[in-house]
Amino acid sequence: METAVLELHTGGSPSVVDLTADTADFVRGKGDGLLNVFVPHATAGVAIIEVGAGSDHDLLTALNDLLPTDNRWSHVHGSPGHGRDHVMPAFVAPSVALPVIDGVLQLGTWQSIVLVDLNIDNPERRVRLSFLAG
Amino acid sequence: METAVLELHTGGSPSVVDLTADTADFVRGKGDGLLNVFVPHATAGVAIIEVGAGSDHDLLTALNDLLPTDNRWSHVHGSPGHGRDHVMPAFVAPSVALPVIDGVLQLGTWQSIVLVDLNIDNPERRVRLSFLAG
Amino acid sequence: METAVLELHTGGSPSVVDLTADTADFVRGKGDGLLNVFVPHATAGVAIIEVGAGSDHDLLTALNDLLPTDNRWSHVHGSPGHGRDHVMPAFVAPSVALPVIDGVLQLGTWQSIVLVDLNIDNPERRVRLSFLAG
Repeated sequence: METAVLELHTGGSPSVVDLTADTADFVRGKGDGLLNVFVPHATAGVAIIEVGAGSDHDLLTALNDLLPTDNRWSHVHGSPGHGRDHVMPAFVAPSVALPVIDGVLQLGTWQSIVLVDLNIDNPERRVRLSFLAG
Repeated sequence: METAVLELHTGGSPSVVDLTADTADFVRGKGDGLLNVFVPHATAGVAIIEVGAGSDHDLLTALNDLLPTDNRWSHVHGSPGHGRDHVMPAFVAPSVALPVIDGVLQLGTWQSIVLVDLNIDNPERRVRLSFLAG
Repeated sequence: METAVLELHTGGSPSVVDLTADTADFVRGKGDGLLNVFVPHATAGVAIIEVGAGSDHDLLTALNDLLPTDNRWSHVHGSPGHGRDHVMPAFVAPSVALPVIDGVLQLGTWQSIVLVDLNIDNPERRVRLSFLAG
């Protein structure tokens, strides 16, 4: 297994960060296999969606509806409503796998791999890419 | 890695399509390993649920509640409310992996692998099956 | 592929069960690769969240909001509202993969692997761990 860690700075607001280019670079030349994208943080997830046409914003809106930043959460610390950030990875998991053929991610035309990060208290993020050849 | 693409016609309404039989056929005779089911579309996902007792309909109802087909979405094109179709893959991911032993999917008795497709504007769908032996 | 099954007793209320220690034991000494955690039940899922600070309770609350235990569900059997338990795995999938390096799960500091089980009618649960070396 070949593995590497991306270091990201996500800033102070909920964000959707496109990882596609870095991920495509990682698998280039590696042949066939499965790529795993894993986020080792308890308040972030990985999704595969279209970006650039508003869906990243729409996703944050849907997450606000599902997991409001109010005082309903038992897990209380940090910014108001931060407890919801800890629930998000149950819905937007911190792990996803993609098939790779001849060093190329088999994404559809409109798919991008994104980090979904609601946490505004910790802008330093890591993403682990792992390739298992087959 | 052995890989193949299923071609599906999902029709003009939100749908849950059972992929279990085709997937079981694909892994038959392949020994032990992990199977990845990946949908290369930005408005579809893959789930593992029971089908045939109403849960496929219940899932579409729950998705309607979470992601209504109204005008709240920034991503505007196609049928009314289509923007929500682009958010769904963040919740129902387009990728899932299953263990395979001696060429048999290790699904539970009541589990089926399904394509979840809200998009009514694109009925032609592809699903990539990839098997990594181990 | 090395694979094993954990046997769990989850009791008579919706529960979040920490699988991290058992999973860490399973991969110890196995080198580098991907671990797949798969639940062969149609009313349970696997998540990676923080536990011990209230987020497990918060997750069950969020699931109650998204999937209420009322009579809206087509799939009717068992305890009142049990139909929602069959929808949950579309959102909290029964499968997740994690990178393993030198026999150690590459979880973040605050991440735990948990079984999410809403079903109060079937307390006997199995979880399959599968390791693919690479």
